[in-house]
Amino acid sequence: MPEYVIDVDILLTQVRAALKRGDLSSAVGLLEALRPADQAGVFDDLLPEEQDRLIPHLKPEDSADILEELEEEDAAEVAERLKADNLATILDHMEPDEAADLLGDIKPEIANQALEAMAESEEVRPLLIHKDETAGGLMTTADITLRREMTAEQAISYLRKLSPESESIYYLFVVDDQDKLVGVVNLRDLVVAPRKAKIKKVMNPEVVSIQANADQEEAALIMKRYDLLALPVIDKSNHLLGVITYDDSFDILEEEATEDIYRLGGVVEETSLDVPFLQAVRSRLPWLVINLFMALISAAVLSGFEDTIAQMAALAAFFPIVAGVSGSSGTQTLTVTVRSLATGELEPKDALKVIPRSLSLGAVNGITIGALIALIAYLWKGIPELGLVAGIATMLNMLVTSLAGVLVPFLMNKLKFDPALASPILVTTLSDSLGYLVYLGLASTALVWFI
Amino acid sequence: MPEYVIDVDILLTQVRAALKRGDLSSAVGLLEALRPADQAGVFDDLLPEEQDRLIPHLKPEDSADILEELEEEDAAEVAERLKADNLATILDHMEPDEAADLLGDIKPEIANQALEAMAESEEVRPLLIHKDETAGGLMTTADITLRREMTAEQAISYLRKLSPESESIYYLFVVDDQDKLVGVVNLRDLVVAPRKAKIKKVMNPEVVSIQANADQEEAALIMKRYDLLALPVIDKSNHLLGVITYDDSFDILEEEATEDIYRLGGVVEETSLDVPFLQAVRSRLPWLVINLFMALISAAVLSGFEDTIAQMAALAAFFPIVAGVSGSSGTQTLTVTVRSLATGELEPKDALKVIPRSLSLGAVNGITIGALIALIAYLWKGIPELGLVAGIATMLNMLVTSLAGVLVPFLMNKLKFDPALASPILVTTLSDSLGYLVYLGLASTALVWFI
Repeated sequence: MPEYVIDVDILLTQVRAALKRGDLSSAVGLLEALRPADQAGVFDDLLPEEQDRLIPHLKPEDSADILEELEEEDAAEVAERLKADNLATILDHMEPDEAADLLGDIKPEIANQALEAMAESEEVRPLLIHKDETAGGLMTTADITLRREMTAEQAISYLRKLSPESESIYYLFVVDDQDKLVGVVNLRDLVVAPRKAKIKKVMNPEVVSIQANADQEEAALIMKRYDLLALPVIDKSNHLLGVITYDDSFDILEEEATEDIYRLGGVVEETSLDVPFLQAVRSRLPWLVINLFMALISAAVLSGFEDTIAQMAALAAFFPIVAGVSGSSGTQTLTVTVRSLATGELEPKDALKVIPRSLSLGAVNGITIGALIALIAYLWKGIPELGLVAGIATMLNMLVTSLAGVLVPFLMNKLKFDPALASPILVTTLSDSLGYLVYLGLASTALVWFI
Repeated sequence: MPEYVIDVDILLTQVRAALKRGDLSSAVGLLEALRPADQAGVFDDLLPEEQDRLIPHLKPEDSADILEELEEEDAAEVAERLKADNLATILDHMEPDEAADLLGDIKPEIANQALEAMAESEEVRPLLIHKDETAGGLMTTADITLRREMTAEQAISYLRKLSPESESIYYLFVVDDQDKLVGVVNLRDLVVAPRKAKIKKVMNPEVVSIQANADQEEAALIMKRYDLLALPVIDKSNHLLGVITYDDSFDILEEEATEDIYRLGGVVEETSLDVPFLQAVRSRLPWLVINLFMALISAAVLSGFEDTIAQMAALAAFFPIVAGVSGSSGTQTLTVTVRSLATGELEPKDALKVIPRSLSLGAVNGITIGALIALIAYLWKGIPELGLVAGIATMLNMLVTSLAGVLVPFLMNKLKFDPALASPILVTTLSDSLGYLVYLGLASTALVWFI
């Protein structure tokens, strides 16, 4: 846990105390002295009625900062409780992309009223048409663009005149008469350029850009790959539609990592701890039902060997070992494969290249673990044959799962399923059912000798 | 998979063909036309002898870009094969933080020779003393600092004179005579400020900073929280030592997410697909051995019920279901808890608050799954009592694991173990052994009735 610069809890107590004694201006003062993320941290922990008392007294830019920093669901709840004109003023002070996101999260009739009442709704409306998960859904308005014939000095005066607060000013995009993207100047180069230099000489004409309908994760990965502070979003004819800023790509990469972690853990669509209870049930229960039906395969295998088990119940003691340890081994391989595919370290075409290494790892680990199991079985149960059977079954099973841990994610990727979601259950089912099958199959063949 | 702007494979083929026909200048031209990340992508796929032929002909700044962009291990291999003076020239062209990292990754005698031969080793030497995982290990030199009494115009002329290439120029830090940090000016504010305005009027005196010995993840989380492009690193007396830039914090957050994903999957210390084979074995085998010994607990439970199993082998069919499904349910809860702790969404002090919700989820899912199992057991085996026993055991087990999925990670966190590493095995062992215990315990008590 990092220690942040302020202690949100102490501030929270102070703000609460001020509100309790009716001292609104102290409460407001305490909050406005903080950085946006901390303002939101304190605000989020207030009760709804405390939030509602406070917000009309905050400066609209502070309320805007707070709504930008809150989790989406929390911001939507606060916004829906505001009066339409109060909400509109706050929306006018938000970054256009954040305002558009918030409008998309609240009830349509409230959103429409607020849009009507906004002074600068024209900045936000074009952003509303893009789907949430696309590059267009992530972009904000590019409010400052340069022209090729401007000089560096003119461009700087222009910036000084507009005195923009925008987070996107570090990269300035250059467009032609038809608003087509023709270049990019970063603020650093503009500042150090000779005053009379034309923008067309200062700009870089090879701009990395992305189509509005591309996936947001693609946008974030491109920004990370090329260390970009801003990525211009264009339509099919290269018109500049907007800009994605680095803070959003930060958030997307973290969201996508969380999604992968959750899906590997069998949690399908929770985005935060605060999702409604029923959504949490919907996110987890179907997955457990699928698990249940997949477990029936192992159950059927075991059921087929009922006679063997009845004859030698000692076999059962090694079930968790034979199935469990190779399951863990499969999970290891699978985890590395899924994550490497997600970060782009591993490309789908390279599937075959990693198999020999994975099999060698499986062999080394399998022989070691198999030998250990044989030893344990012998020492514990005193039946060398049982140890041999359990050890061999585990070793073979680990070889198979180390292959499956690579092939299954690649196959899922090829079939356009998310490997993080679909692979773990398949690998676990395979290692369980195959583990029982080999173990009990060997045991029933060998039973003639060892009882 | 995102499509990047260039196709690395096509370029690779072209570069290879040029090298094969001895046309070094074409090969160099092809590579130098690319962006650094793509240069590194192509270069990485060349054979070592091809890399060695190419590198003396590249501009040092391009070689520097490539070494910066390669994975650490790959960059170290390339560097160790270079001549000391060639390596020194390239190091001089690298960002100081990247040069320091590379020097730390190669053989000490090669590193020392290269440092001796460098023209600007004084920028790199101070960075070498900080540990890799700390804020100091992540920072680069702050090569441009401003003074309070400068005007905006003087500051801009100063920038124009130095014409820095540094990535850290978007935030300019202000220091006093003793090099103590007193403020920050962002380039945007400097550009739009009146020309005669003093820096002390333009700067923000409340700078977020971090101590050099703080953890690198803390630095990255602070930068993300406050949307910072650069974070100044200070010593205990507030002297400015260096700056961490946003691209590094990007990388750290991705590394930490990968580490969590790997640890949840039982992969302890692999950082990339290319780690040496023996390190991969060391990263996975001990974990499997621990799994094996934990599985012995379940094995002991099963062994204790050998008589019951021998009397009614049909019980065995439901082992994978009773243990497996509640294991999955525990993994779901655990995954959400571990990730929320890592991103800071959940704070350690809030453990108790999430338990009621987790238990309710466990109850709803447990009753549903328990009922389904009872139904399946009845339909399949035609023994209603068996179904009842398996269903009740699963339901109880899911309640316990939904509690354990919260408590275990919190406890690990409190005990300063990484919850991602220690929790999964504990929760799985608990759900397995407890599942067998309750199921077989109930069954052996009820056996008198149903056979």
